[in-house]
Amino acid sequence: MKKSHKPWVTVLAAGLIGLFAVGQAWSDDSLKDVMKKRGLTEKDILAAAKTYTPTGGRDEYLAFSSGGQSGQVIVYGVPSMRILKYIGVFTPEPWQGYGFDDESKEVLAQGRINGKDITYGDTHHPAFSETNGDYDGQYLFINDKANPRVAVIDLKDFETKQIVVNPLFKSEHGGAFVTPNTEYVMEATQYPAPYSDDFVPLSEFNDKYRGGLTYWKFDRDKGQLDMARSFTFELPPYSQDLSDAGKGPSMGWGFTNSFCSERYVGGIEKGRPPFEAGCSSKDTDFLHVTNWKKAAELVNAGKIGKKVKGMTVISLKEATANDLLYLIPEPKSPHGVDVVPTGDKIVVSGKLDSHTWVYDWNKIQNAMKNKKFEGKDPYGIPIIPIKAVLHTSVAVGLGPLHTQFDSKPCIAYTSIYVDSMITKWDYCKGKVLDQLPIHYNVGHLVAMEGDSVKPDGHYLIALNKLSIDRFNPVGPLHPQNHQLIDISGDKMKLLYDMPIPLGEPHYVVAIKADKLKPEVRYKSGWNSRKNERSQWKTRAGREKIERNGNEVHVYGTVIRSHITPEIIEVKEGDNVHIHLTNLERAEDEVHGFAMYGHNVQLSIEPGKTVTTSFKADKPGVYPYYCTEFCSALHLEMEGYLLVTPKGYQATKTSLNEGTQYTKADYDKQVKTNIETQKVIDQVVAFITSHNYKDFPTVVGLVEDATDQLGFADNAKKKAEEFAAKGDWNKAMGWANQWWQYQVKTADLGLRAKTYLEQHGAKKLK
Amino acid sequence: MKKSHKPWVTVLAAGLIGLFAVGQAWSDDSLKDVMKKRGLTEKDILAAAKTYTPTGGRDEYLAFSSGGQSGQVIVYGVPSMRILKYIGVFTPEPWQGYGFDDESKEVLAQGRINGKDITYGDTHHPAFSETNGDYDGQYLFINDKANPRVAVIDLKDFETKQIVVNPLFKSEHGGAFVTPNTEYVMEATQYPAPYSDDFVPLSEFNDKYRGGLTYWKFDRDKGQLDMARSFTFELPPYSQDLSDAGKGPSMGWGFTNSFCSERYVGGIEKGRPPFEAGCSSKDTDFLHVTNWKKAAELVNAGKIGKKVKGMTVISLKEATANDLLYLIPEPKSPHGVDVVPTGDKIVVSGKLDSHTWVYDWNKIQNAMKNKKFEGKDPYGIPIIPIKAVLHTSVAVGLGPLHTQFDSKPCIAYTSIYVDSMITKWDYCKGKVLDQLPIHYNVGHLVAMEGDSVKPDGHYLIALNKLSIDRFNPVGPLHPQNHQLIDISGDKMKLLYDMPIPLGEPHYVVAIKADKLKPEVRYKSGWNSRKNERSQWKTRAGREKIERNGNEVHVYGTVIRSHITPEIIEVKEGDNVHIHLTNLERAEDEVHGFAMYGHNVQLSIEPGKTVTTSFKADKPGVYPYYCTEFCSALHLEMEGYLLVTPKGYQATKTSLNEGTQYTKADYDKQVKTNIETQKVIDQVVAFITSHNYKDFPTVVGLVEDATDQLGFADNAKKKAEEFAAKGDWNKAMGWANQWWQYQVKTADLGLRAKTYLEQHGAKKLK
Repeated sequence: MKKSHKPWVTVLAAGLIGLFAVGQAWSDDSLKDVMKKRGLTEKDILAAAKTYTPTGGRDEYLAFSSGGQSGQVIVYGVPSMRILKYIGVFTPEPWQGYGFDDESKEVLAQGRINGKDITYGDTHHPAFSETNGDYDGQYLFINDKANPRVAVIDLKDFETKQIVVNPLFKSEHGGAFVTPNTEYVMEATQYPAPYSDDFVPLSEFNDKYRGGLTYWKFDRDKGQLDMARSFTFELPPYSQDLSDAGKGPSMGWGFTNSFCSERYVGGIEKGRPPFEAGCSSKDTDFLHVTNWKKAAELVNAGKIGKKVKGMTVISLKEATANDLLYLIPEPKSPHGVDVVPTGDKIVVSGKLDSHTWVYDWNKIQNAMKNKKFEGKDPYGIPIIPIKAVLHTSVAVGLGPLHTQFDSKPCIAYTSIYVDSMITKWDYCKGKVLDQLPIHYNVGHLVAMEGDSVKPDGHYLIALNKLSIDRFNPVGPLHPQNHQLIDISGDKMKLLYDMPIPLGEPHYVVAIKADKLKPEVRYKSGWNSRKNERSQWKTRAGREKIERNGNEVHVYGTVIRSHITPEIIEVKEGDNVHIHLTNLERAEDEVHGFAMYGHNVQLSIEPGKTVTTSFKADKPGVYPYYCTEFCSALHLEMEGYLLVTPKGYQATKTSLNEGTQYTKADYDKQVKTNIETQKVIDQVVAFITSHNYKDFPTVVGLVEDATDQLGFADNAKKKAEEFAAKGDWNKAMGWANQWWQYQVKTADLGLRAKTYLEQHGAKKLK
Repeated sequence: MKKSHKPWVTVLAAGLIGLFAVGQAWSDDSLKDVMKKRGLTEKDILAAAKTYTPTGGRDEYLAFSSGGQSGQVIVYGVPSMRILKYIGVFTPEPWQGYGFDDESKEVLAQGRINGKDITYGDTHHPAFSETNGDYDGQYLFINDKANPRVAVIDLKDFETKQIVVNPLFKSEHGGAFVTPNTEYVMEATQYPAPYSDDFVPLSEFNDKYRGGLTYWKFDRDKGQLDMARSFTFELPPYSQDLSDAGKGPSMGWGFTNSFCSERYVGGIEKGRPPFEAGCSSKDTDFLHVTNWKKAAELVNAGKIGKKVKGMTVISLKEATANDLLYLIPEPKSPHGVDVVPTGDKIVVSGKLDSHTWVYDWNKIQNAMKNKKFEGKDPYGIPIIPIKAVLHTSVAVGLGPLHTQFDSKPCIAYTSIYVDSMITKWDYCKGKVLDQLPIHYNVGHLVAMEGDSVKPDGHYLIALNKLSIDRFNPVGPLHPQNHQLIDISGDKMKLLYDMPIPLGEPHYVVAIKADKLKPEVRYKSGWNSRKNERSQWKTRAGREKIERNGNEVHVYGTVIRSHITPEIIEVKEGDNVHIHLTNLERAEDEVHGFAMYGHNVQLSIEPGKTVTTSFKADKPGVYPYYCTEFCSALHLEMEGYLLVTPKGYQATKTSLNEGTQYTKADYDKQVKTNIETQKVIDQVVAFITSHNYKDFPTVVGLVEDATDQLGFADNAKKKAEEFAAKGDWNKAMGWANQWWQYQVKTADLGLRAKTYLEQHGAKKLK
């Protein structure tokens, strides 16, 4: 069996003579043959060329999609339409350790409703943080419709950092929308309910059920929403829907539409017409116009507002008395109110209508100033007549839903639900420019940076709610279909059909990729959820187990390819807290930690410290291991939790070694190690003779390799010590560990060398 | 505001004159311009052409990937590499209602460990059911490494139907692998542990810790694994790893490899060399060869085996005494044992070696027959000498891991972990044919139907464990990278990089797409998890609420666009069970059901009946709604759960209507409805004048439209009744509901008409 041992070194050396040069030779398939075989047209090839992104290529935009009932956020690249990440937000996600480590459990616990854990969310509207109305790439906000909550995701590490529960609402839809400098995040109710948590009969619907609109104050320094500095407009029991913040001339104002301003309450089971009938009987619903800037000033000055369950509420009376709140009729059952990039027009449309309606902000202001109202609603809110403020209305198709804007002035795109198409139109001149059929039943749509003051154009994505026959069938529950459309020319062109494999996205926002600067590792010993050094951090060599009564704290580390400690012995009934720090610095060198029978599953990215706590309530043997394929000996990255029964006294503590080694075994291993070191020396010589310091990726790899080589030295010393004592088993073990560290060094070194070769490193003189 | 009402009908009519003909006009972008702009080479265009799948196109293969620690199965299309579905298996998934409805909670409860809910799994090896060694497309099996479990997924609806817990193991890795007619599903331990659930000190590791290999009996008629008819081979405390079942000449046998046959126990925290050193000290580990066919006969005849915790265990003594178990040395720390399609050779490779080793089944049989052993292991298992059975060994590269087979005879592909490449080689002649570098650190690899007796060739996918710099950065936790490779020619060609956005897949199997025949709807009132008519099913018009003491059962239905009942009133302390049946028949017409504050989230596909049960422990108002964007009035598909406090007595039951209607309102609505009906009549005329019955999709749509029109008639009658009584509010409500049904009819009708136009329907004579 010598054969199986030696070649390692030989092949390792082969790496030096250009392993990565072989293989990548293309035969001369003809494009025409491929097109014929796969039934592709020239148009298909053009679409393929516009979306295909070769290995290592970057997407121009990153789209952040709500995950609907999956309770997550989905991140994908545009134009490749490849999904890059699901971010756990309201739903535990074991791969990310989200909802499994104590740190993220704390985030999810912030989202409890009436003390109950809610293990899902219905995420709807993601929104980027903005500076001067432009996306700044720092934060993403997302709401939960089912349980009125808003979450904050930090785009440095794509992790959820905070969840806030709206203390007044029982449902919301119209969040999150941000004001132009992320002063506030808007969240509006959907289904009216009492602000109190008590039972209130439906006979008191008109009097005690309420809608509302919360402006959540965002503290950018802390990266947190601050309820103490937030306020909520009390609104009538209409079903408020989407919002958008004013910008430019309309800066300081917010717009929120609604349906069911009939205030209808269904009851089909009692012979009443259902909600759908009673909520769509009137020709118009109401657009709510709110002055958040003035409201904030008045609240901060203590002139209006009352704290209810920790939230400042501006009553309907206060809002109307201070000219903070107006209504404008809008076509019935709308979905989507969108302020144009220049901020001087507002587009609304009703799902049961066939027009988009464009309101003029100057005319709205004039009407407010001149008190040009057509009356008041039953709650005393002045109603601005539609005729006084309408700029134009455009027949865009059946069931217009949501509007996005182009980089070109006056150009808008509206999703047409019933007709399943996108209409491109001019909101200044009020005319339709182009229409593109899509599959099937589009909801929202998103243009690149299409919510900002500077839309980017280029691409549009239709978020189709049904996919029906577009993809290979996968059972009764279908994916959705996001269709990528080229909007760079006069005519829209369909490029790509993308199935959504998990969740039912509601809305997407897309940002220029180079605005994001995510980190690839954490500072050492980092609590990522609190964004601070963890109190449970551990350094290499400082691992320990501390007991305080029944509380056992394990301060451990993970590194290729072992978990320290490898054996954890605790007593029945102990509360065990395992704190693990990932010692790696290399990009992507994540370790996991799963343990039998205790619902323990951690994801530990380079630098991170996480904790799992559990009660050792049953004596037994519980293997644990690293779940990430981190290295060749990943499977050997293992250990045992041993829970001894109450009163247990060990009778024998030594292990019977399964295999006994001799001096000959040891000598053979040492010989291998010396040969391996020669290979490493050659790799090192190659790297250090080149300008590797100009390549940050390589510098990271070299740092890691140097670490590993340091460990190797340590293991070598131990091996030699035990050899001197004639303890061949331990000597052999450490000699092998020395070799393991060498292998990792060589692995890293070869990867660095390959990188240098592929990226045109220069030889130093 | 008349304007907003009328155009609906007008535009509806416009649908008749060819709405879907507009829009799709391509401008003359030049391919060359696009290539230049996006920096694409001709090779890139060729790769794009080989993978791009235009709208409505079908993938040739469906790949089923384990989701690793996400605890799911990922389904994607090949060659488009678009992810079609995540299937919830061991982890609750709210979008699918998995772990939220009572029916799927029962499935997850089968997977409890020591009575504890485990809300994740570490899925590793998916395996298709087989008939005569070929994939039959009926079932998929998948294991959980962290908590030794196996799940059964039905490929009719892509749902998890069963989870079994291995009662003996505390960890496993080598499952699921199936025998050629799915007689059994193989599951092998990973980390040795006592079979009992008691604490056993590590000093008794060699004597009382055990590995094992379970053959789970699969009952194909029931679609269930049957523990009563399964059996487990007791194995030494080596770390067993992957398995494969023999086929052809090796039919009836199984092969399972291992690492750490040193039986080393680490303890780096106590100064012992870590597991990784002690578990890789010997040059060889052991391949276990088991005779499952003979074992089954002996067990069934009652000649061997003893029930331990409900599982039949074949002791080491029984296995060796009856020639059921042999060992063959194999290069150390292997991962992957693969039987060639013809069943006469077995390929193994060690991760710390640089060769694949090919064993000859004839030679193995001869060695067993002639008792040509080199000795026995410490547990009395005969060891067949490697030299006696080796066909060839091939230097394939550093860290060979897993092997897959081509449609061409003797051709194999092996993933090379340390070198990050794929080696194509000939296992008959023992020579390397081609090598392709990939990015980075490949684990398993999969060829199309590459585990079956008839591999399909065409494509290979490298499952790379790291993606590092291949994609836009998304924080410290990276996606993985599945690289698609064209293997149709002599040289391998890299086609596509696919990020995996959730989970860390371990292994993938891929099946010819046309072997799958998933259903698009359930039989009406179906319990999909039990595959039987639900006891809680309800038909339209039969909805009811039944109370029995504190137990309240709500028999409800969902259909576009209302939930029946719309108001559910219960008392504080009631145990509420809401059973909902989806009345839809149309493909993709899924409804959801979310309720504030109760962690209630259901997914109700067409025909399905599901239940949510909860305690109404707090008086209050709890809105609920449909989470799927199912129709234009999806937002109005809502209702309220009202929980009255103990002792509550209603003082007033009537509602104050929010809006009052007049005869004029009613007359206007009726006029609209009559106009709408004319449009519907035209659509119907178009459909019925064509051969629509030849199009099953259209037949489905027409059935649904007919249903909706029937409902419209009903609502019309009610409207007329209330109008006759002068109750204009109710008359108006029902008139509007009549119109809502018409709109749905028209929506369906237009979709059907478009389908006919696009699919070349012929006019009937």
